[in-house]
Amino acid sequence: MQRIANLIVRKDNKVLLLKKPRRGWYVAPGGKIESGESIFTAANREFREETGTIPLNPHLKGIYTMVIKNDQDIVNEWMLFTFVADGLEGTPYEDTVEGVLEWHPIESLHHLPMAEGDRTNLLFAVNEKGMQYGTFTYTEDFELLNETIQISTEGDGINA
Amino acid sequence: MQRIANLIVRKDNKVLLLKKPRRGWYVAPGGKIESGESIFTAANREFREETGTIPLNPHLKGIYTMVIKNDQDIVNEWMLFTFVADGLEGTPYEDTVEGVLEWHPIESLHHLPMAEGDRTNLLFAVNEKGMQYGTFTYTEDFELLNETIQISTEGDGINA
Repeated sequence: MQRIANLIVRKDNKVLLLKKPRRGWYVAPGGKIESGESIFTAANREFREETGTIPLNPHLKGIYTMVIKNDQDIVNEWMLFTFVADGLEGTPYEDTVEGVLEWHPIESLHHLPMAEGDRTNLLFAVNEKGMQYGTFTYTEDFELLNETIQISTEGDGINA
Repeated sequence: MQRIANLIVRKDNKVLLLKKPRRGWYVAPGGKIESGESIFTAANREFREETGTIPLNPHLKGIYTMVIKNDQDIVNEWMLFTFVADGLEGTPYEDTVEGVLEWHPIESLHHLPMAEGDRTNLLFAVNEKGMQYGTFTYTEDFELLNETIQISTEGDGINA
């Protein structure tokens, strides 16, 4: 099963997003997790490769099961691991082979064009405490058919 | 790729463990994540099925890449998602088809027989704050060849 790690950097009330050329939709920089690689290592590596910068104190915020359906048939399924970081070291590329890197105000995540599941995930990553889990079901044209979401936070019993 | 979710319940300074019949090694109750299922839903479902109880406030504590090597060849690779919960609702089964469920003092995780990677993971889950990531490489006989670990905690920028 394909596994994708992405990472959204938050700095000065802005976030760094990648505008993909095909649809003009925005995503957080990221890419495929390799065999034997931890998801943390993958998220850091992919972010560095796509932006030319190092994210500061990345932390996992969401794990999602993504399902593509054609009518009742599942035609694709993958996992998405979304990290947040507070700032970065270096100056991001502007144009890359993957698309254009742009800083946008955090609140623009509410209206920039993107997959609806990504909007849910990125808003949680930058605004909320804890961890989010869920399943997003899309058509092959990335119309969101269904989403189910769960959230958990670290209990008081830790180090109690 | 196979994906396993397990869950360790901590209650009154004890943890609920499953003693597997083949080697007598201890594990946290868990099992396979199904197609389309979120890892949170899977961890809860598997725990309920294996123990007959409901975990309270489960929270993800670790994500691991598990690699089995025969000499230089990777013969198997899967992902493990480890949750912790503070208490449970109900009375656990004693004997199950999977093994015997037993309560043990938290500190016994240091010496009970188990895979060495599981020891690292479960001790982190019950004793530490934040999220742990890593890759564990084993022989086919579950001798630990190598481990690499990363840890992150939620940044101060959350809700700042």
